[in-house]
Amino acid sequence: MNSPEANLEEPRLVLRRVVIEGLEPEIDGGKYPVKRTVGEPVVVEADIHADGHDVLSAVVLYRPDRESGWSEAVMRPLENDRWRGQFSVESLGPYFYTVQAWVDAFQSWCRDTAKKAEAGQDISVAGQFGARLVQSAAKRARGNDSKRLAEFTAELKNFSSADPSAVVRCARSAELAALMGRYADRSRATTYDKQLAVMVDREKARYSTWYEMFPRSCGAAPNKHGTFRDCIPRLGYVSEMGFDVLYFPPIHPIGHTKRKGRNNTAQPAPDDPGSPWAIGAAEGGHMAIHPELGTLEEFKQLQTKARALGIEIALDLAFQCSPDHPYVKAHKEWFLERPDGSVQYAENPPKKYEDIYPFYFESEDAPELCEELKRVVFYWIEQGVRIFRVDNPHTKPFDFWEWLIREARREYPEVIFLSEAFTRPKVMQRLAKLGFAQSYTYFAWKNTKWELMQYFTEMTQTSVREFVRLNVWPNTPDILTEYLQYGGRPAFMARLILAATLSANYGIYGPAFELCENRALRQGSEEYLDSEKYQIRGWNIGSPDSLKGLVARVNEIRRENPALQSDWSLRFHTVDNDQLIVYSKATEDLSDIILVIVNLDPHYQQSGWVEVPLADFQLASNQSYQVHDLLTGARYLWQGARNYVELNPSVLPGHIFKVRRRVRTERDFDYFL
Amino acid sequence: MNSPEANLEEPRLVLRRVVIEGLEPEIDGGKYPVKRTVGEPVVVEADIHADGHDVLSAVVLYRPDRESGWSEAVMRPLENDRWRGQFSVESLGPYFYTVQAWVDAFQSWCRDTAKKAEAGQDISVAGQFGARLVQSAAKRARGNDSKRLAEFTAELKNFSSADPSAVVRCARSAELAALMGRYADRSRATTYDKQLAVMVDREKARYSTWYEMFPRSCGAAPNKHGTFRDCIPRLGYVSEMGFDVLYFPPIHPIGHTKRKGRNNTAQPAPDDPGSPWAIGAAEGGHMAIHPELGTLEEFKQLQTKARALGIEIALDLAFQCSPDHPYVKAHKEWFLERPDGSVQYAENPPKKYEDIYPFYFESEDAPELCEELKRVVFYWIEQGVRIFRVDNPHTKPFDFWEWLIREARREYPEVIFLSEAFTRPKVMQRLAKLGFAQSYTYFAWKNTKWELMQYFTEMTQTSVREFVRLNVWPNTPDILTEYLQYGGRPAFMARLILAATLSANYGIYGPAFELCENRALRQGSEEYLDSEKYQIRGWNIGSPDSLKGLVARVNEIRRENPALQSDWSLRFHTVDNDQLIVYSKATEDLSDIILVIVNLDPHYQQSGWVEVPLADFQLASNQSYQVHDLLTGARYLWQGARNYVELNPSVLPGHIFKVRRRVRTERDFDYFL
Repeated sequence: MNSPEANLEEPRLVLRRVVIEGLEPEIDGGKYPVKRTVGEPVVVEADIHADGHDVLSAVVLYRPDRESGWSEAVMRPLENDRWRGQFSVESLGPYFYTVQAWVDAFQSWCRDTAKKAEAGQDISVAGQFGARLVQSAAKRARGNDSKRLAEFTAELKNFSSADPSAVVRCARSAELAALMGRYADRSRATTYDKQLAVMVDREKARYSTWYEMFPRSCGAAPNKHGTFRDCIPRLGYVSEMGFDVLYFPPIHPIGHTKRKGRNNTAQPAPDDPGSPWAIGAAEGGHMAIHPELGTLEEFKQLQTKARALGIEIALDLAFQCSPDHPYVKAHKEWFLERPDGSVQYAENPPKKYEDIYPFYFESEDAPELCEELKRVVFYWIEQGVRIFRVDNPHTKPFDFWEWLIREARREYPEVIFLSEAFTRPKVMQRLAKLGFAQSYTYFAWKNTKWELMQYFTEMTQTSVREFVRLNVWPNTPDILTEYLQYGGRPAFMARLILAATLSANYGIYGPAFELCENRALRQGSEEYLDSEKYQIRGWNIGSPDSLKGLVARVNEIRRENPALQSDWSLRFHTVDNDQLIVYSKATEDLSDIILVIVNLDPHYQQSGWVEVPLADFQLASNQSYQVHDLLTGARYLWQGARNYVELNPSVLPGHIFKVRRRVRTERDFDYFL
Repeated sequence: MNSPEANLEEPRLVLRRVVIEGLEPEIDGGKYPVKRTVGEPVVVEADIHADGHDVLSAVVLYRPDRESGWSEAVMRPLENDRWRGQFSVESLGPYFYTVQAWVDAFQSWCRDTAKKAEAGQDISVAGQFGARLVQSAAKRARGNDSKRLAEFTAELKNFSSADPSAVVRCARSAELAALMGRYADRSRATTYDKQLAVMVDREKARYSTWYEMFPRSCGAAPNKHGTFRDCIPRLGYVSEMGFDVLYFPPIHPIGHTKRKGRNNTAQPAPDDPGSPWAIGAAEGGHMAIHPELGTLEEFKQLQTKARALGIEIALDLAFQCSPDHPYVKAHKEWFLERPDGSVQYAENPPKKYEDIYPFYFESEDAPELCEELKRVVFYWIEQGVRIFRVDNPHTKPFDFWEWLIREARREYPEVIFLSEAFTRPKVMQRLAKLGFAQSYTYFAWKNTKWELMQYFTEMTQTSVREFVRLNVWPNTPDILTEYLQYGGRPAFMARLILAATLSANYGIYGPAFELCENRALRQGSEEYLDSEKYQIRGWNIGSPDSLKGLVARVNEIRRENPALQSDWSLRFHTVDNDQLIVYSKATEDLSDIILVIVNLDPHYQQSGWVEVPLADFQLASNQSYQVHDLLTGARYLWQGARNYVELNPSVLPGHIFKVRRRVRTERDFDYFL
């Protein structure tokens, strides 16, 4: 245990005058890194103060590894002893940062000398004080800097009380200030007592567009088991819709013992394919490919074809076994043995999942188990996979994931792990802290305006955003929400627009989604009827009712508008109708401002007066501006803060407006920026 | 620097399942202790969770020093994975605490077995699982406990599937649960990674009533320099008003060079006594007594007399020197030398304080200086002083105070240091964190309802209260606020009631306060005219206009009502008049509820409807209750939440109500508790 008693009991006397506290961002006292993607800024704030009234100086120290020298970024005081500075992260992997601050004797001298001169006081002694400081800096300096400082020293020393202007001139000299800043006396500087870390990911960790698909449903005929080869023609379809991650459920051999039949029944028909999550059979386990999907070579070919279309294939990491998994015989010690000698299956009493054997991480042999699972991850990385969607990480120890992700990222810092944990909020957040680059969310169950505002404000406007990156899904093979079941096509459109614009990372499970599949297993269930988890489905992807065109347009809008590629600028705005939700995202320089309005009511037309935050958008209240609906191409001239909107859900339940500020006069041909 | 990179880079694999995070109270990551007084509880909360669905158990571990074994207090889950437990601190000095939690296999088994039995499932294997757990505990147990656990093991083992009731009986047995709790398997328990500290003070640190007085003004004749002997008869006066701390400005020899005259003039008359804060003359420095006050022996006699009346004498620690202080010659190295060879005086350009030389803590010889100042503190402790009011601590390094207070408290944990820092909020809070038991506040300048509510809510209802203990003063020799200058006698009464009831620690500078001295040096100044800082004042303490009686009654109410002896229960309540402020304090068991209403307008009568928080006070809305004004003795029967009050400031600007809940029926003689 790290003992803070030192503070209470150990006699020692080090007089540092400057205090640095309340540093942000800092997660759990520095235990976990904050997250950024390459090129993003890290804005660092701290409370910095000292005894007395001296002027202080402070810098953020940062470096891309532990060996490099520190780079520095100047911090500026805000108010109430709060200071701010920032730096950018330019390479993958960890960065480190801390803060250093010191009493700036020269700046204090400048301020005090100017005040004395203004009050008409004798400043001959002040001149000598200044000479002392400048001379000392001259000794620390080199080359021409040292020479110039020596000249300033002479000027201050030679000053006669008949001409105080020389001293005042020095106190106000920009050149001297710059030199003195460069050679400030930091021998008694305070450095914050922790080095904090930033985990830098590639851009896709922040902005990605996912499509989940069962490759076995891509077969040429409706009931024929699809293969990786069959997926190749489907890539064009996925690419046309604008997705850049194609995620497959597990592609490994599927167990036969206790296999589940169609619609999750206990008695499968002989040709029922089983759940891909019941991993392992005679043909192999987590490092094998289900023979009916194809070969490793074919999987690699598929990856190559996908990459050519800008699509990465993401695999599922489901660390559990079917009773037929080779591990079950070869490594009984990795499973919990029941008193009757059988292997413990998954259960959540009184529910039993007898087709699944969880690993037993409390086993004495857990270290070997962990090493094996690490081999699984590295195996697929070596086959070219760089994105993993991790199934139920919250049912395996946190420490396992922390270790595994650290190990993987040390060699492959471009690897992205998505946490599929639908569980209690603090558990989900812990998984994000310990290294998952993206996290599933409660989005699917947030359907009212209040719920959406409350949830997304918490996730994007508090310190949670430093380590949680949302990846929102309106549906998954396990989640067909009541909103989608009962809201029909308008509900699918609304949830698509919300997902794609509220979160820079989002995904859909298709073709179920774009084909508006909304039949549930039974009333009150969120399971799909005829779920692809237990059977092969043929999908009519060419259906004229498909939302394919809307999906493609929404994803195109995301690509063209950087405001939608990050979540930190998300702000909700007022509208006088609880069925309408209004929010904006904008780039920092306001060159891209997106204003989204969605009708959450899938049944009726809704209208209301939207309050546009004119000041935030730097819009003048007395000039009109244009809102350009990127979905339909329609353009509206708006003026002032309150403007009317009306949305018919059967037509299109949302606007994605680009706000175009009027910047020219009537003498120009083009009116809007 | 403490490097957290371990988390990012070091390969290691320890699988602990339980996570403990978000522990409170914890100040600055455990760097500073929280504060309590003997007998107070420490309520500890943490987020505790693990992977999966197992039942967890958690305890607070605590001990009064680093050598003792840990004691334990059980923690209970609240909601959203938040847990709470508490312990009491029973001795002075530091306490240490942390949290331990583990996956409770037995409790998980009980829960799951009961669920399976309810669902009518076969629980024969569950019975064997249970036997495994109980047998393992039997091995850890001793004596009869071990025997009983072995019996339970046999019962579980011998169970036949014909009679599942035996297993269910075991799963629900309170005796078995208690035994299994006692011998829980904690081999994989998680212990929070820090030991946190509590600094335990004596009760006076939390509840004290201060009177500041210049002993030199206690002389027999108006212009005669008062002595410690003259103070003895004054003790009765102070005691009758109910004060328990009598604080003297510095009692040391006063410098002559650059001495300030009456009303802070630069040209003193020959008989002007000088400011007591210009410490040091030929007669001695910080360890000497001003000859005109008396001898060390007389000071000790005065302390003895005071103690007999329940009064402690507090001294001022003003670490600065007059130009005549013996240190100035003997230790030139402790002061900053100006380029002209003179000693640097205090200044805040363009203001100069040439009668004061600050110590130069950036000197190479600062360690010796600090040791000397420590000798000063220990010297006065050895003369019996246990309370120090520290003058301007924010103009000396934080690290100096942290070291000094730690050193003093290690030998004398009963010593109390009050920080007299009127400066920026974060500086004031830092001083409190590093060890000052009490802190001066902004109270004097908080005069409107909004200011008072905002300030006292922040100081008593946020984590600031864990380390800042307020000591509020309506006036000091430096502070005669405009509110007092222009509000007359009603203003003094109102500020007295506010100070004494908002804060368990408060003080007045008298006799100026009770005699309603309100003449300022000039318009716009907060300095007293004819300030005692620069001259001896004769006070007519027998004046019929004195607030002595009110002060005495207020302090008596504080003594009789434990609710007023702590600040944590302070809550503000609604009243429909911005000139009225309403708040309450209550003991945890509600045996003492005090409701205070003050008219902040010193000129006019104000009235309004007060909203009483019936639920908080456990008052029925359909029964009347009594509010008993402890200032006047008047009793009012109130009913429901809204009740009328009216306060005439010339008569008495406040009510201090004791809320008496009706607990008996009409068949009882006494109607109210």
